[in-house]
Amino acid sequence: MQKRYKLAVALALAATAASAHAQFKPEESIAYRQGVFKAIRWNLVPMAMMVQGKMPYDQAAFLARAQRLDQLSKMPWDGFGPGTDAGAPTKAKAEIWSDAAGFKQAADAFQAETPKLVAAAQTGNMDQIKAAFSGVTKTCDGCDDKFRSK
Amino acid sequence: MQKRYKLAVALALAATAASAHAQFKPEESIAYRQGVFKAIRWNLVPMAMMVQGKMPYDQAAFLARAQRLDQLSKMPWDGFGPGTDAGAPTKAKAEIWSDAAGFKQAADAFQAETPKLVAAAQTGNMDQIKAAFSGVTKTCDGCDDKFRSK
Repeated sequence: MQKRYKLAVALALAATAASAHAQFKPEESIAYRQGVFKAIRWNLVPMAMMVQGKMPYDQAAFLARAQRLDQLSKMPWDGFGPGTDAGAPTKAKAEIWSDAAGFKQAADAFQAETPKLVAAAQTGNMDQIKAAFSGVTKTCDGCDDKFRSK
Repeated sequence: MQKRYKLAVALALAATAASAHAQFKPEESIAYRQGVFKAIRWNLVPMAMMVQGKMPYDQAAFLARAQRLDQLSKMPWDGFGPGTDAGAPTKAKAEIWSDAAGFKQAADAFQAETPKLVAAAQTGNMDQIKAAFSGVTKTCDGCDDKFRSK
């Protein structure tokens, strides 16, 4: 079994030079992408509280959160490789793989909004920040609605 | 109870303007930092396999992993706030809080090595990459040995 596993890994590596993550088990991919989304939420929540006036606005703290969000926005997607639709509890819908183009579009839309939030955060202008933050959360919700189970 | 909770949150927010994460429950902080460490490992493993010759070296892929590692290296630390030593299964040792200066030193040492790995990855020179990667993993191990339960 161990030998067969090693062979399978070797074949997978040879077949998918483009994917550096064939060596991970599905449950590791799932844990990875869930971890990144937790980190995304960790940064989103304090920004939401500042935008909503539930926490004092702090320009430097907001900007740091926005920059981290922008970095993290690029990361979860390689955790959705082939065969990672199961193996651990996941809210990922089958549409992620059956409508890969639609999922990529939703992922790209999110990544297109986060640099705008960074730019707005740099100005410190709350009207601009609110507009940009709304742009980000709309793409979160849009993707969640289509591709994440309730 | 709900009211008391809100009051506690309000007081916590007032008392810790510097910490934007007082609003998270301990189990959320633990899940956050564990998620970031999973993302760190996700990037470290393919780099280790390339350094060890177990996966073909790909300069662009290695550099992308190194850059993400560098970004992630700054993130887990605000998940170790006061009161987050318990609340969910965690391997975090009590020394993280009892020896906060030592923990910060270990965290800083790791963050000092990741930019060197990015610089080495940009050269594409495997000798430089190996040396820098070893520098990174030494600081991982050094911190794990002192501050993470087996």
